[in-house]
Amino acid sequence: MNDTRTDREPVPAEQREREEQVTRQVLASFDGCADPRLREIMRSLVGHLHAFVRDVRLTEDEWAKGIEFLTRTGHLTDDRRQEFILLSDVLGASMQTVAVNNAAYGDATEATVFGPFFVEDSPEIAQGGDLAFGAAGEPCWVEGTVTDDAGEPVAGARIEVWEADEDGFYDTQYGDDRTAARAHLFSDSEGRYRFWGLTPTPYPIPHDGPVGGLLAATGRSPMRASHLHFMVSAPARRTLVTHIFVRGDELLDRDSVFGVKESLVKDFVAQPPDAPTPDGRDLGGRSWSRVRFDIVLAPDGT
Amino acid sequence: MNDTRTDREPVPAEQREREEQVTRQVLASFDGCADPRLREIMRSLVGHLHAFVRDVRLTEDEWAKGIEFLTRTGHLTDDRRQEFILLSDVLGASMQTVAVNNAAYGDATEATVFGPFFVEDSPEIAQGGDLAFGAAGEPCWVEGTVTDDAGEPVAGARIEVWEADEDGFYDTQYGDDRTAARAHLFSDSEGRYRFWGLTPTPYPIPHDGPVGGLLAATGRSPMRASHLHFMVSAPARRTLVTHIFVRGDELLDRDSVFGVKESLVKDFVAQPPDAPTPDGRDLGGRSWSRVRFDIVLAPDGT
Repeated sequence: MNDTRTDREPVPAEQREREEQVTRQVLASFDGCADPRLREIMRSLVGHLHAFVRDVRLTEDEWAKGIEFLTRTGHLTDDRRQEFILLSDVLGASMQTVAVNNAAYGDATEATVFGPFFVEDSPEIAQGGDLAFGAAGEPCWVEGTVTDDAGEPVAGARIEVWEADEDGFYDTQYGDDRTAARAHLFSDSEGRYRFWGLTPTPYPIPHDGPVGGLLAATGRSPMRASHLHFMVSAPARRTLVTHIFVRGDELLDRDSVFGVKESLVKDFVAQPPDAPTPDGRDLGGRSWSRVRFDIVLAPDGT
Repeated sequence: MNDTRTDREPVPAEQREREEQVTRQVLASFDGCADPRLREIMRSLVGHLHAFVRDVRLTEDEWAKGIEFLTRTGHLTDDRRQEFILLSDVLGASMQTVAVNNAAYGDATEATVFGPFFVEDSPEIAQGGDLAFGAAGEPCWVEGTVTDDAGEPVAGARIEVWEADEDGFYDTQYGDDRTAARAHLFSDSEGRYRFWGLTPTPYPIPHDGPVGGLLAATGRSPMRASHLHFMVSAPARRTLVTHIFVRGDELLDRDSVFGVKESLVKDFVAQPPDAPTPDGRDLGGRSWSRVRFDIVLAPDGT
């Protein structure tokens, strides 16, 4: 990371030694930690945190700004707004954690960032059901299969789906207690699933808080590429947290949370208002779209 | 930091490459940052944050615990409780920042951690005044000089002093709006100062929150070595933020925020109740102590 350093004098060896002494003292304070995993995490965290302070020669004013940034981030976070997850997302720490925990496994579907908008206890819908629950947007027929890495169908997989409405808002952002544009269903005996969702549209992550301020200050856009969230779980299978993205979306190469992977970009095929729907549903003259997403689950523990 | 790593398989090169690709993508997102200093800080922060995640192979559950820890830390922080500063302190990030910003300069007095208990607008006391304002504790006569690094007196230096009472509480922890055990005064024309404070006593940092939980989980004590805070400023001089510590305190080698430096350990000399006071003050038969602290300020910009 030296290429963007501002010019400065090298740190004299004696001063460097005084600084590293501080780090050694803090590392040693964890010697009595009875939990070896916690000790490992704390020692690595302290090592990297101190190296960051030394590497950038963090000033006391900058340290104070950091404290103030974290304080504002904490104050904005509540049951409906998780600014720390947003922060992790825009720093790519979320995707790095996803990468570390979801090693490639054969043809298993790739994982991506979880995001701050999942909620427990979504309503269940039947096969072919509609998850919109009144959320505005163009209907989108989503279908596919859930199989294991040997191509065998996975029956009864729990498929959680959630997405923003056409204005870019999740139900948790509506300011009331409505549940909309989220649901779960189960794959059938042949591993198949199908449901009506909404054609994904691009939207900005919430950017009226500290994370939005950080993006603005660094010249980054808060926009996310259009996507539809999935979480798919089944016994003896690694739980898959992922999205599918819309081929042709101009935001694919500058998603604000680094979630896009080529394998997750799908063809959302536009359908004219008069095109017959797969299940005969009458959409009242609206246009719609359709997409296929075949899901492959890796074994648990991989 | 490899010595405490739990045993694990080495990361295959292909997987390592996928992980580092995430980091490169995030680093590149700051290419458009117009402020070179902010760009440098963000790139270094992201580099170290991602390396931490990779090095410890952070699990998704551990990531979620981290988010939850930060959330609780944010919710506990308010105008009177700064849990993020405590966190920085117990991780030694505060002392590392102090070390980076206060390079040794001749005989200049060493700096130490600022802590979360300073408040602006402390009352002014005259030379020889008492900063207790009703806070409980044994009286302590504190005197010394403020000089520059050539030994010349610094007249009119602003000396802020603050400390905990004998029960280990700062006024900001009383739960009302009292100001106690804090004040400021100015060095006289010969650079001298003197005041009545309280003999410092050991106390735990607030440990009923997430930071206290972290200390307990890692087998660390929340206790701070007994100390008296100073902040000394004067034109053309580097502002000094420091404490003095009590020689003989058994906590000197395990201060919870790593603030102790040998040069800051002073002799607080116990005085019997009948010992005449330096200013003739009648202490009503109480014992007292006295300490000398001669302060040397480095030039500004060093």
